[in-house]
Amino acid sequence: MVPSHHIVIIGGGFGGLYAARALKRAPARVTLVDRRNFHLFQPLLYQVATGALSPANIAVPLRGLLHRQQNTSVVMAEVVDIDVKQRRLVLREGGQLDLQYDTLIVASGSKFNYFGHDQWSELAPGLKTVEDALTIRRRVLSAFEKAELETDPREQRACMTFIVVGAGPTGVEMAGALGEVAHHTLRRDFRNVRPADATILLLEAQDCVLGQFPPDLQHKAEKSLERLGVTVRLGATVTQISPQGVTVKTGDRTETIAAGAVLWTAGVKASALGAALAQATGLVTDRLGRLAVEPDLSLPGHPEIFVIGDLASFSHQTPQPLPGLAPVAMQEGRYVAKVVRRRLAGKLPPKAFRYFDRGNMATIGRAAAVADLGWLHISGYLAWLTWLFIHLLYLVQFQNRVLVLIQWAYSYLTRGRAARLITQEPPRIET
Amino acid sequence: MVPSHHIVIIGGGFGGLYAARALKRAPARVTLVDRRNFHLFQPLLYQVATGALSPANIAVPLRGLLHRQQNTSVVMAEVVDIDVKQRRLVLREGGQLDLQYDTLIVASGSKFNYFGHDQWSELAPGLKTVEDALTIRRRVLSAFEKAELETDPREQRACMTFIVVGAGPTGVEMAGALGEVAHHTLRRDFRNVRPADATILLLEAQDCVLGQFPPDLQHKAEKSLERLGVTVRLGATVTQISPQGVTVKTGDRTETIAAGAVLWTAGVKASALGAALAQATGLVTDRLGRLAVEPDLSLPGHPEIFVIGDLASFSHQTPQPLPGLAPVAMQEGRYVAKVVRRRLAGKLPPKAFRYFDRGNMATIGRAAAVADLGWLHISGYLAWLTWLFIHLLYLVQFQNRVLVLIQWAYSYLTRGRAARLITQEPPRIET
Repeated sequence: MVPSHHIVIIGGGFGGLYAARALKRAPARVTLVDRRNFHLFQPLLYQVATGALSPANIAVPLRGLLHRQQNTSVVMAEVVDIDVKQRRLVLREGGQLDLQYDTLIVASGSKFNYFGHDQWSELAPGLKTVEDALTIRRRVLSAFEKAELETDPREQRACMTFIVVGAGPTGVEMAGALGEVAHHTLRRDFRNVRPADATILLLEAQDCVLGQFPPDLQHKAEKSLERLGVTVRLGATVTQISPQGVTVKTGDRTETIAAGAVLWTAGVKASALGAALAQATGLVTDRLGRLAVEPDLSLPGHPEIFVIGDLASFSHQTPQPLPGLAPVAMQEGRYVAKVVRRRLAGKLPPKAFRYFDRGNMATIGRAAAVADLGWLHISGYLAWLTWLFIHLLYLVQFQNRVLVLIQWAYSYLTRGRAARLITQEPPRIET
Repeated sequence: MVPSHHIVIIGGGFGGLYAARALKRAPARVTLVDRRNFHLFQPLLYQVATGALSPANIAVPLRGLLHRQQNTSVVMAEVVDIDVKQRRLVLREGGQLDLQYDTLIVASGSKFNYFGHDQWSELAPGLKTVEDALTIRRRVLSAFEKAELETDPREQRACMTFIVVGAGPTGVEMAGALGEVAHHTLRRDFRNVRPADATILLLEAQDCVLGQFPPDLQHKAEKSLERLGVTVRLGATVTQISPQGVTVKTGDRTETIAAGAVLWTAGVKASALGAALAQATGLVTDRLGRLAVEPDLSLPGHPEIFVIGDLASFSHQTPQPLPGLAPVAMQEGRYVAKVVRRRLAGKLPPKAFRYFDRGNMATIGRAAAVADLGWLHISGYLAWLTWLFIHLLYLVQFQNRVLVLIQWAYSYLTRGRAARLITQEPPRIET
């Protein structure tokens, strides 16, 4: 007998995937809807952007992850609106498919926030999708190629300048990896330029890197970055990004820096579905596009709709809403599945959601990291090993975990980045 | 002291790369020019198109392959013309870089031949580049996704019809791999369609598959294909490809078959540089765009220009010009390097080029292949092992050979195709 209760999950990221998995034995039909056909392990996307891993090493087909789960189906489609009254999803070009839900879990995530300058996204992509990572890989590698052919030293220097905006974990990891690329990977590859002469500029508007970390680890991270040849510039606000370069204001000084590639990691905002859901329910989003949720992660007045992950603003535990981190989304996904399972079983609801914070970490280049475990701050090689161990633990969800481990060990030992391919552009010129 | 003799090689495929490597100790400067920054192991491209391997598993950065070779530099640029009188290359958007040569080795390869119907290339891509492979991967996987959401059975059947035009080695390998995908990889992934119901149609205008193989192996290959659920249709000419489908004429019967994805492997012609070179030298190309070469692979009247690989028509050994195969290009590349080295050393030229034919093979799906070693015909599992062994031997040129082997073993054992990602399209809709 097919169960009649239908749970629809929007988004196959950490929140949505963990919710779906935790609903494995629920007496309900589960449908996971995502625009993409794969789950992406975003924390390692910077490894794709710098050529150490291939997209398939960190992306797993959703159907493959869920095919053993008999009550669950996967729909590849984009949700453009939610009809809260009819309890129905509106899909892009999905006229015929009617996705009616009894319970809805919205986990559509976030995108980069250009703070009103969306036109910058073309010149300074973020690092959210596989395509973003391949674009950055292409731009960075092409910039070295262009520098090699360039005869004007000023142009050459511009080609070999890489700017990372935002010194959060992604920015720090990306800048560190670029340092590795310039100083080690490409060291012997060119004849007319020395890749080690590249300028890697990490711009941060605040007065510290890794704002969410304690000061001692911030300093250690800064030191590690400098050892990798990264120039950290604090208190630096980006006021303009144009094809000519990035305009930076530091104190009273404003300058425009020409660059071979620019990467934006200076903040995120919730996906557009948040606004659609707010409109449909009469709620409002906060300035980052998030929806405030109840202690059980449901929407006020809509116990049948749950919002989790980067789209949710959960402020029942700490004064600040919980941060948009993978572990938060995973735990929320699992919690919501539990709420739904108990409801379907006619049991009392569980206690309010509580995020269990295992700590914060960021890796810098090949063998350095900082880890804030609350009771313990570690840095350097040991922190890096911890980081590696924890990431491998999460990757254990994936079928190809062994492969990624081997690929990684290989890249580590050889300092190689075998995936440094320039692909997708230029389009083939002849037919 | 920098040697004054400058050897320029156009193309980093099998011919160009093997020539460059064999010039390692030549008393000359060597420059390898390619549009792309990597060497591509084309024989395994169908594994990328069907999600078993990632592009980086079969593509290696040219700079990495050649960085130990002190006399050699790599230039990433597209050659659009050759000024034979001035001995200079004309590069696209390369105004400032003047590539003057003393010896030129042209190894720019081939592209798919649509026999006057170049407009078909968009609807039925070939399998020459990484982008081609990713396009095909995307189309095949998207077709299954579309079928899953489709309610009209006729549309559903159309989505799940895949047409491969041309039953040469690439077409046979591709059709076999698609059979694997439908019958094994995706078996449990869908809820509304059975991937095993997919129609995989291999169309061949001649009356046999693998035209260059002996009849007993042709029959064995046909059998293997049928076991994988591939429908082989011989004597079938494609007369039209449109968004509605592929129009096929078999005998007196003409029908139009709607398909989820179409792949073109029905023949190649030489790259456009052949025509440019013909015009510059007053020579003519044959109907496949190739240039007839002397017994030492130089152009008639131009001992300083060598043409090798798919661009060359070498007819001093067999009545038919040598086929466009990787081993031919490799051997030609090595031979030409030898000619140049002897010239630079003031020695007599070597004997005329002779291709040493080690045999012909094609693989069909997971564990079947046919191999024609001349004195021995083998098929089935043993042929497949031979095929595997030989391809791994060639891959030994690559630094990441162990990784590819492991990846492959893993895919083989699990029948998995972890790289079945739909990427690059649709472009991100929101900003």
